[in-house]
Amino acid sequence: MTITLYDLAGAEADRRFSPFCWRARMALAHKGLAVETVPWGFTEKDRLPQPNAGRVPVIVDGDTVVHDSTAIADYLEGRYADKPTLFGGENGRALARFVQNWTETVLQAGIIPLVVLDIHRHSRMQDHEYFRRSREERFGRTLEEVVRDRESRLPALRASLDPLRRTIERQDFISGNAPAYADYIVFGAFQWARAISDFELLAADDPVRGWRGRMLDLYGGLARRAPAYGD
Amino acid sequence: MTITLYDLAGAEADRRFSPFCWRARMALAHKGLAVETVPWGFTEKDRLPQPNAGRVPVIVDGDTVVHDSTAIADYLEGRYADKPTLFGGENGRALARFVQNWTETVLQAGIIPLVVLDIHRHSRMQDHEYFRRSREERFGRTLEEVVRDRESRLPALRASLDPLRRTIERQDFISGNAPAYADYIVFGAFQWARAISDFELLAADDPVRGWRGRMLDLYGGLARRAPAYGD
Repeated sequence: MTITLYDLAGAEADRRFSPFCWRARMALAHKGLAVETVPWGFTEKDRLPQPNAGRVPVIVDGDTVVHDSTAIADYLEGRYADKPTLFGGENGRALARFVQNWTETVLQAGIIPLVVLDIHRHSRMQDHEYFRRSREERFGRTLEEVVRDRESRLPALRASLDPLRRTIERQDFISGNAPAYADYIVFGAFQWARAISDFELLAADDPVRGWRGRMLDLYGGLARRAPAYGD
Repeated sequence: MTITLYDLAGAEADRRFSPFCWRARMALAHKGLAVETVPWGFTEKDRLPQPNAGRVPVIVDGDTVVHDSTAIADYLEGRYADKPTLFGGENGRALARFVQNWTETVLQAGIIPLVVLDIHRHSRMQDHEYFRRSREERFGRTLEEVVRDRESRLPALRASLDPLRRTIERQDFISGNAPAYADYIVFGAFQWARAISDFELLAADDPVRGWRGRMLDLYGGLARRAPAYGD
């Protein structure tokens, strides 16, 4: 049975740019599950299964509705325990939480002030006002001010990748010899950035690019084939 | 058979303050193995099993000598596979590497400029010159200059703990419901600091203190009973 994934989309319905939705998309592919994605805009609360918090990803699997990327990963791991594991056990699941918390507090927090204006540009016309207002409130500045001089902030972002860089210098994936959910968490942040911005985050010789390339190749180039910038 | 652990010691032989040795010490306790520690000073290359790189931890288990905390954890996990696992499988082992790389590039790198003069004060008199010279070369400043105004750098250190803080706000240990090697890696950094410095890194209400307390309680208060400052 095909699983439905409500997936954040921009003005072009094929351009999918939620880091959290990419986690779910990659996790579904990891489990080898058929999926149909529904493009969804920031303000379409009414189009999601009810009740909802106005956020994606949401999946519908038969009679089961699951909200939130972490809950989705846990659901898939339990419901499809016979398929390749996302966590490799409870210790792996717990440590994936650490990777998630690093991704959200360091990586995504570092990326957003660099690309937030690009998100605005790619979002649907009817979402522009909502997006600008909510994000300018959060930052206390205009989006244009937030991204100003972003080149000068690249060295700090790149330095903040040290834990990731050292890890994938010594093993092909964050999760070891093969990718698993922790990789999808971190990859979601990079795929989000490249889906909506031509501002390259990584230096040409950064080993993190090699890992990102391996992630883009997975599942028949699932993420590489999606509308995005750069390699 | 008792395992021997060469363990970095200060002027007081009981004051053990290597973050890497604490990883090994906790891993040995996790496996329930009997250990005899040998206090070792920075410059006692000749007192370690030969050949050596002049660094601890080193363990001797019968005819086997293992250098380096990571190699020791891998050795213990393989040799004592029947004892409680340090990693919970290959995914957990791979993700523990990420936690290790975060600990070394963020946490330990953030702590050392705050406590390096305290390490000097606690090291053996005959190690003072070596320690000061090697560390001042690394920092390009005197140790006194490195720690100057350290209070002003506490907020940045505390903010850098966000990935850890969020994780242990939602689960008792980094590794989940029970501690495992990733916890020992991070704990080693805190135990190092508290062993040689009365400069408290954590705010009184920081949830990280709760986790640190749980770590101090493990194995009959192994780390709590060791000479150190604060709680």
